[in-house]
Amino acid sequence: MSTIPQGSTQSSYPPIIPKPFDANQPKTIRLYPLSNYTFGTKDAQPEEDPSVSSRLERLEKHYKEHGMRRTCEGILLCHEHKTPHILMLQIANAFFKLPGDYLLPEDDEIEGFKARLNERLAPVGTQFSGEGVNDEWQIGDTLAQWWRPNFETFMYPYIPPHITRPKECKKLYLIHLPRSKVLSVPKNMKLLAVPIFELFDNTARYGPQLSSIPHLLSKYRFEYVDENGKVIAATPGGDATNSEPHSSEGDNMQVEMNGNVSGE
Amino acid sequence: MSTIPQGSTQSSYPPIIPKPFDANQPKTIRLYPLSNYTFGTKDAQPEEDPSVSSRLERLEKHYKEHGMRRTCEGILLCHEHKTPHILMLQIANAFFKLPGDYLLPEDDEIEGFKARLNERLAPVGTQFSGEGVNDEWQIGDTLAQWWRPNFETFMYPYIPPHITRPKECKKLYLIHLPRSKVLSVPKNMKLLAVPIFELFDNTARYGPQLSSIPHLLSKYRFEYVDENGKVIAATPGGDATNSEPHSSEGDNMQVEMNGNVSGE
Repeated sequence: MSTIPQGSTQSSYPPIIPKPFDANQPKTIRLYPLSNYTFGTKDAQPEEDPSVSSRLERLEKHYKEHGMRRTCEGILLCHEHKTPHILMLQIANAFFKLPGDYLLPEDDEIEGFKARLNERLAPVGTQFSGEGVNDEWQIGDTLAQWWRPNFETFMYPYIPPHITRPKECKKLYLIHLPRSKVLSVPKNMKLLAVPIFELFDNTARYGPQLSSIPHLLSKYRFEYVDENGKVIAATPGGDATNSEPHSSEGDNMQVEMNGNVSGE
Repeated sequence: MSTIPQGSTQSSYPPIIPKPFDANQPKTIRLYPLSNYTFGTKDAQPEEDPSVSSRLERLEKHYKEHGMRRTCEGILLCHEHKTPHILMLQIANAFFKLPGDYLLPEDDEIEGFKARLNERLAPVGTQFSGEGVNDEWQIGDTLAQWWRPNFETFMYPYIPPHITRPKECKKLYLIHLPRSKVLSVPKNMKLLAVPIFELFDNTARYGPQLSSIPHLLSKYRFEYVDENGKVIAATPGGDATNSEPHSSEGDNMQVEMNGNVSGE
């Protein structure tokens, strides 16, 4: 059992392959190298509130007028050296957050989320053209829901007992990145590719939400392709009789692997 | 937005319902009260190994003969007071573990896992009869994979960099419990229903695997029924126009909610 596809192995001691171990899992997700993506900059997007207390006051106002706030954040995945990396925004060299934002009361969930992602990361003007510039975001599975029971900073990955009217629900979605894409980052932020092992067990630096991302992703099977579209590694446990490396059909494969993103 | 279904609310201040917020999530899971389940005892099942080091030696032997070990554990859910509880085994008043075990090399994944669950929890003899005694286990989604990179105790929810041949993969699956079921627990173990909030952020007591279960479950929408099959609470965020409480058709509903457990 090995992460190296049969066609790429250089070992003269082939691994012993046990019976398949991939039942009841979602379709394998193809990860592209970080170098496939192009990063630009655009105008700064300052924080909406000057302080935490004013942010909570604004939430209270929203709740009174529109009910529970709906917030959407995206987990954008690529790989470096065959390890999953998550694209995160770092603000003012200090805290980290995932791309996304709260929905406007009149927004539909998925369309509203795509609009928020575009505000934050889509290129502006005609600086870029070609593949991956104006592609739609492919919103995948919901990976987590975090609930804010009160107008306070604490959130939980469940609704605490005795709470019948939570004030905010933040959903985290897997975003299927295409083979290549252009992302423009507001000037006051940095976009970082953080490796999954850096997040794990690191609540101190990343907080409870971001540090739990490795857990949320652990059920997926990944395959890692190089810049030429060749599969260079994959999650072991699949059917050994099917473990021939995929051909490098690039775009067709991309559609096949990333197309099935609705309604699981 | 409220966890209380419209038909059960007693408030004269109805909540403001925002637009739906349930896209890209799995089907709602129905949880039954703990009191619906019957617990018996059976002969003790002592640990296979006298020490941690002998367990790791046995793993090494297994790996040399059969390749990566495949281990399966189940997350069995019910509710108390409208809060999800996880059924866990406690051994010798000390450590906790989920029901399940490693697969034999010749076992198929799902069938082998069902056999392990039966060894641990199925009633023996003819002490019990009727509904829920001889039902098949309904194995649902894979919720996590933990990888053991070396013949050591550490496991990770990802394959660490530079590891191409992991020694063990432990998969956690959601088990859909039917409306009622008889479970028999080996005499040297206790079966405990642990509330989700007790596990959260409690690595000190439950270890990294069990304390991450709240994260793994947070993407699901739950509905909680009482002993008569009436829905008494549900995850908010659904379509308000559909939020009428379900009728209490008991068994039909059970099949509908729990039947679709394959290959998501």
